[in-house]
Amino acid sequence: MKKYIAEMLGTMVLVLMGCGTAVSLSCTSANPDLASTVVGTALAFGLAVVAMAYAIGGISGCHINPAITLGCLLSGRISGKDAGMYMLFQVIGAFIGSTILWVLTSNSGLVGTGANACQEGVSVTGALLAEIVFTFVFVLVVLGTTDAKKGAGNFAGLAIGLSLVLVHLACIRYTGTSVNPARSIAPAIFQGGEALSQLWIFIVGPFIGAALSAGVWKVFADKQN
Amino acid sequence: MKKYIAEMLGTMVLVLMGCGTAVSLSCTSANPDLASTVVGTALAFGLAVVAMAYAIGGISGCHINPAITLGCLLSGRISGKDAGMYMLFQVIGAFIGSTILWVLTSNSGLVGTGANACQEGVSVTGALLAEIVFTFVFVLVVLGTTDAKKGAGNFAGLAIGLSLVLVHLACIRYTGTSVNPARSIAPAIFQGGEALSQLWIFIVGPFIGAALSAGVWKVFADKQN
Amino acid sequence: MKKYIAEMLGTMVLVLMGCGTAVSLSCTSANPDLASTVVGTALAFGLAVVAMAYAIGGISGCHINPAITLGCLLSGRISGKDAGMYMLFQVIGAFIGSTILWVLTSNSGLVGTGANACQEGVSVTGALLAEIVFTFVFVLVVLGTTDAKKGAGNFAGLAIGLSLVLVHLACIRYTGTSVNPARSIAPAIFQGGEALSQLWIFIVGPFIGAALSAGVWKVFADKQN
Amino acid sequence: MKKYIAEMLGTMVLVLMGCGTAVSLSCTSANPDLASTVVGTALAFGLAVVAMAYAIGGISGCHINPAITLGCLLSGRISGKDAGMYMLFQVIGAFIGSTILWVLTSNSGLVGTGANACQEGVSVTGALLAEIVFTFVFVLVVLGTTDAKKGAGNFAGLAIGLSLVLVHLACIRYTGTSVNPARSIAPAIFQGGEALSQLWIFIVGPFIGAALSAGVWKVFADKQN
Repeated sequence: MKKYIAEMLGTMVLVLMGCGTAVSLSCTSANPDLASTVVGTALAFGLAVVAMAYAIGGISGCHINPAITLGCLLSGRISGKDAGMYMLFQVIGAFIGSTILWVLTSNSGLVGTGANACQEGVSVTGALLAEIVFTFVFVLVVLGTTDAKKGAGNFAGLAIGLSLVLVHLACIRYTGTSVNPARSIAPAIFQGGEALSQLWIFIVGPFIGAALSAGVWKVFADKQN
Repeated sequence: MKKYIAEMLGTMVLVLMGCGTAVSLSCTSANPDLASTVVGTALAFGLAVVAMAYAIGGISGCHINPAITLGCLLSGRISGKDAGMYMLFQVIGAFIGSTILWVLTSNSGLVGTGANACQEGVSVTGALLAEIVFTFVFVLVVLGTTDAKKGAGNFAGLAIGLSLVLVHLACIRYTGTSVNPARSIAPAIFQGGEALSQLWIFIVGPFIGAALSAGVWKVFADKQN
Repeated sequence: MKKYIAEMLGTMVLVLMGCGTAVSLSCTSANPDLASTVVGTALAFGLAVVAMAYAIGGISGCHINPAITLGCLLSGRISGKDAGMYMLFQVIGAFIGSTILWVLTSNSGLVGTGANACQEGVSVTGALLAEIVFTFVFVLVVLGTTDAKKGAGNFAGLAIGLSLVLVHLACIRYTGTSVNPARSIAPAIFQGGEALSQLWIFIVGPFIGAALSAGVWKVFADKQN
Repeated sequence: MKKYIAEMLGTMVLVLMGCGTAVSLSCTSANPDLASTVVGTALAFGLAVVAMAYAIGGISGCHINPAITLGCLLSGRISGKDAGMYMLFQVIGAFIGSTILWVLTSNSGLVGTGANACQEGVSVTGALLAEIVFTFVFVLVVLGTTDAKKGAGNFAGLAIGLSLVLVHLACIRYTGTSVNPARSIAPAIFQGGEALSQLWIFIVGPFIGAALSAGVWKVFADKQN
């Protein structure tokens, strides 16, 4: 149970801090000051992972993302039962994070909960491809750095968090960056409208990306030389 | 005595550098260039903690924040006497830091000492909630990464400092970010007015957040599985 | 074979994420908001190296740059055959990265693939000198931090990645920053025109810089005291 | 001799990359986009130290700053002869770095070599105080993190580099930030005028700050408890 609660707490922090910064800095493609809002928001999502990786990583491994949990399941690193429970508690944690953020913004004249959506000029196909591609890269870093033999040891938490900064720098301009279904579900329900009707992109895309990543890593890791 | 002086020096550096950067970059919600001033100020507060964690962490543990000291006291990691002395020397250090900053700005055509206050459109309730919530997250990272068994070892200083960057990215838009009573007291006395009349928020909020964090961590850490 | 595929995957990620961020943030010297687009793009290239260094470094050493491979060849750290294969797979990986980026931008109303070119007011001589100088610095850091005796151990991946952030901060204003022939070839072929006619600068410059670096390091490392 | 050349190379890289970024991003208090140019320039100076610390730290200790060398001399960590030679080679390295930068900018339509000077509204007293105070903080971090008993071990290079980012975030608005006489001498000679007439501030200030730091650390480290 302890590891499930760790996943819940971690995902709560990720959504509260990452989406919270996106709202604080008005990070959308319509903001003429786009680049600096992207830098700030990208740092927030990535540093939330760094913080949580070193705070709860010793307990649950700090997935805090159903796409990572799927990648680990397909790579045989977690049982089916644990994977299901991880995803459940991640979504619950994300809801708690979104709810806290909604209470904060409601008392502070701010608007939104950081939901994902196709940004200016981005087609649904473009958004789906972006989520697949960038989740593929992110989960590849997770699988590589946490590899039992060739991985990064204590540096893994730092490398994974910084790679989430990286993914946001490139991807925010397309979709605001999900690469994490739990991070997208709760804000979409709070915001409704377009965010809700496009929600499927941010569930299907990350899961496809993570599955591709697990497949590529499996072929790759099985090579003898 | 040595560890108390370490706390004084560390808090002096935190206030001088963090608040000093906020003044240098004109970081307030009224600045139209908000996002990049927030990124710079957030980095300053967080990197001050990284610097001090590795410079004096071996001596005092580098709390440099009465909210962290309260969290450690409630978690049974520090004695009551030491906790009181830590807080006293933290406040003294913060005053020295603010005084140095006031001398610098007075000779340089700059204004302010980086006091906390409700930002544009933020109600007192919103500010108090923000300080409670973000201190909760910050102290949770501190308690998790410094856990004797499951913690982050040498990476703790880096993870804690980067989590303070994170907290500032999300929270500056609400209150300028305190999450540290010592950081707020001295600038408020230098600036007076609204900063002084709202000072209670930045004492009560962080202490409530830290107490919540210690409570959650206690329940969590006591679980067997 | 495994290490060659690692080089291909790593270079693919570098080009996709680094050039992808340059496109997402419209990072060119013509952008009036230059500084924040430079910070974002510099972080993307550098953090891609950090991510890959800890994900595939244990397999191939994570060169993902023909200039680094040349520096290692001239320093006697890699065989001629492996060096040739590394460079081949790096260029293949860069093409895959550029192709993916082209598919993404084509579906999202974005333009370009992040090709290098002389920026506003920069002569061909200036661009060539910049690429020589900044590649020299970058490869010097690589050779120093990965030195078997006096190097940085597990910190090397972090130091090298952060030094690529550094190189981009200084160099983007001159050429957009190559310091990596593989990173420049594929986008130039996609974009054609000036990017293609100036491509030689981004092959010759980095190779000269890397050779200089290997020479300086050799003289330096051979000294007894 | 090897360690002296390491100091020369390291200081060359620091000046070339740090001052080079300040020029590339037009970082002066007159730039309305101040905050993002400060973030970029601060990262450049600090990451140059991180890169050099892990590349040459094992050879010379990577002072690359006469103020640090003075602090180490007064703390009894380096001999008088070595201190003198370190400072000499640091200044030579800085000149090489400035010369390379001057060649680059001359071929690229850019102006300046990143000399230090009182920024808008800052008096000579304000500038001198800023250099004393911020060098004090910087050298304190150096002495603390490299302490043989209570220091930061392998993390010292990272902590020191990030503390130089910190110092620049706070100090650029006053003087452009020297805290390093070698970094100021060469650009001042290239630029002449005000930069040259104010050069004494950037020699006297950092040396006073470093001496204060050594004194405080000595009293502090001598305490038994």
